[in-house]
Amino acid sequence: MAVTFAKRMKTLRASEIREILKITQREEVLSFAGGLPAPELFPVEELKEISIRILEQMGREALQYSTTEGYKPLREKIAERMNRKFKTSVTADNIVITCGSQQALDLSGKLFLDEGDLVLCESPTYLAAISALKAYGPRFIEVPTDDQGMIIEELEKIIAAQKSIKLIYVIPDFQNPTGKTWSLERRRDFMKLIQQCDIPVIEDNPYGELRFENEILPSLKSMDRSGNVIFTSTFSKTFCPGLRIGWVAADAEFIEKYVLVKQGTDLCTSIRSQMEISAYMDVFDFEAHIEKLVAVYRKRRDVMVEELRKTMPQGVRFTHPQGGLFLWVELPEHIKSIDLLHDCLKNNVAFVPGDSFFPNGGVENTFRLNYSNMSEEKIIEGIQRLSQAIKNVMI
Amino acid sequence: MAVTFAKRMKTLRASEIREILKITQREEVLSFAGGLPAPELFPVEELKEISIRILEQMGREALQYSTTEGYKPLREKIAERMNRKFKTSVTADNIVITCGSQQALDLSGKLFLDEGDLVLCESPTYLAAISALKAYGPRFIEVPTDDQGMIIEELEKIIAAQKSIKLIYVIPDFQNPTGKTWSLERRRDFMKLIQQCDIPVIEDNPYGELRFENEILPSLKSMDRSGNVIFTSTFSKTFCPGLRIGWVAADAEFIEKYVLVKQGTDLCTSIRSQMEISAYMDVFDFEAHIEKLVAVYRKRRDVMVEELRKTMPQGVRFTHPQGGLFLWVELPEHIKSIDLLHDCLKNNVAFVPGDSFFPNGGVENTFRLNYSNMSEEKIIEGIQRLSQAIKNVMI
Repeated sequence: MAVTFAKRMKTLRASEIREILKITQREEVLSFAGGLPAPELFPVEELKEISIRILEQMGREALQYSTTEGYKPLREKIAERMNRKFKTSVTADNIVITCGSQQALDLSGKLFLDEGDLVLCESPTYLAAISALKAYGPRFIEVPTDDQGMIIEELEKIIAAQKSIKLIYVIPDFQNPTGKTWSLERRRDFMKLIQQCDIPVIEDNPYGELRFENEILPSLKSMDRSGNVIFTSTFSKTFCPGLRIGWVAADAEFIEKYVLVKQGTDLCTSIRSQMEISAYMDVFDFEAHIEKLVAVYRKRRDVMVEELRKTMPQGVRFTHPQGGLFLWVELPEHIKSIDLLHDCLKNNVAFVPGDSFFPNGGVENTFRLNYSNMSEEKIIEGIQRLSQAIKNVMI
Repeated sequence: MAVTFAKRMKTLRASEIREILKITQREEVLSFAGGLPAPELFPVEELKEISIRILEQMGREALQYSTTEGYKPLREKIAERMNRKFKTSVTADNIVITCGSQQALDLSGKLFLDEGDLVLCESPTYLAAISALKAYGPRFIEVPTDDQGMIIEELEKIIAAQKSIKLIYVIPDFQNPTGKTWSLERRRDFMKLIQQCDIPVIEDNPYGELRFENEILPSLKSMDRSGNVIFTSTFSKTFCPGLRIGWVAADAEFIEKYVLVKQGTDLCTSIRSQMEISAYMDVFDFEAHIEKLVAVYRKRRDVMVEELRKTMPQGVRFTHPQGGLFLWVELPEHIKSIDLLHDCLKNNVAFVPGDSFFPNGGVENTFRLNYSNMSEEKIIEGIQRLSQAIKNVMI
């Protein structure tokens, strides 16, 4: 065929890593590679009850087309929960429902980005955010990031040096891939800078409610006085991914535009799924369910950190996340994590090499571990194999 | 805010019509404006049974993330049904599941279109296809179209005159908005031309199974020897829209690219919804269900056509669709359908003015009527009011 594709298809390539990781789906592989929530914790029985109720009481409405912005009772509940947990002041009118928070990222790219536009992000950052935004042709600048979040002085320098920046993308809570959380002070300093320079910020917060210790920190959105912060989140980690329900929370002016681009993109998100989550919150104790998740994930995090401490050789560093699903490992500079992955796969253990999380590439000695989707026994066994593989190459 | 949006946002504007039509959602309005299937025919009871079964038997899998291409048993069934009904020769490997067929259109734009690229379409064409593709900045050329489909001589002239055409978008079966169907001969002539010039064709076929009389005609895809035809369809009209399940069927080389763009767009479509439709087909008689829909819609079409014949003044022309949901009316040239809509709304009857279905605008004396979502009594009453309004302006 002589068919030509859009230019963007040159940058959107099937990831080599993804191909390698396909083999991690084999039963015998202990895979820390995915980002899946634990399916044994899905509220299957509760959803069955809710599902029957929705079809009996509102079947026709639940199975019909619906409004692009989403089911109002759910948007109201999301607003209430955000205000309570993340200290925002939003209403249903500030919310549009999306097909998972991945769609929120895609719509953000569509809304803001022209080819060549500049996007700032943490270094490293969420790999699927990179691919969502990349489809719109931007250039990425990675802002140096430490344990407290983006380094404000570095961010200031970049802003001063660039004529125009279109978008800043950040994950302040239990970041994917590092598991790091921005400190309160860093959040304040960041927002002080942002209010001055009028750049839209996407605050991606899929993990914020999965906090293992201490209090949830106020979101960037809660400190937003100029309406520049666009908050995105999802029920995929707190309820289940299979219903594909996420959202964008932003100023009404932005929401109107998100609704417009979503309309052309997929008309609407399943109203039945939205009704189910909304009814679930009416009938069951969602907060108690989240506490249950937190308890299990906390234990898994503990086990993983403990085993890493026990078994990792000197020179290997790893984060200690206070929540979320991921932990980040830094190897001595001369070890390439892609080579390590090949070694590990021979012993049926897997992870995601860190390189894909740097939009401009070039960092080869890091990798991401997921602890939410594996039993404690298997985590111990997997980390032992991983440590052994690292020791083998460090000798 | 000094925030700047992407350039595309200048062309993606909230439609004025959509604002007007919001008032048609009032109970007392007889609205022929929507494109909704009849909710009283949704298989609510059956879905309840299936829903319980899926959650009981495969709950954890149904609520987890899933593959981007979609649930294999459903893709197999779609392939088998397409081959049987539309004479194609596809397998599950030729299918990717999408969030309704609207997402298939969005992904097509993403895959093929750069700013300024040329898209050919029927004149008029489906309005939401225009907005899906418009987001990627193409120019549209409307190909003159008669009762048999695109006029091949005109299409040839356009192809000869243009350096490069990126995509052709057509709806050969019961077109939205006109209700027209391409003849077999026209399909053959079209495909003969297409095979020579290697341009990808999107054959959008959401209504093909809703045929009221005669046999289903072979799809363009069934005549495709060069792999240029991309077939898109949906369960929204044959099952229900609320599950948001559509699909793309195309050569494996294309499917691979669709999967790639879908991954960045929303990761995956709800596997639970896919499992439900698949199980529904295992347990219930889907073809019998479609026959039931066809019988109801045929009757509604009959009633509408009959009432139009009885009441419309001389000089008003309308189509007689052999299937689908829509019928198209052409007024004498001096009557603007947007003015007529304002008159009609005073009498609580509504339709969609035709102008929005012409990507380059400029045709003001047409409108679209939907007959699938209203009882026969109301159709009669609505058409009478409509005819009276037209008579009032024709005097």
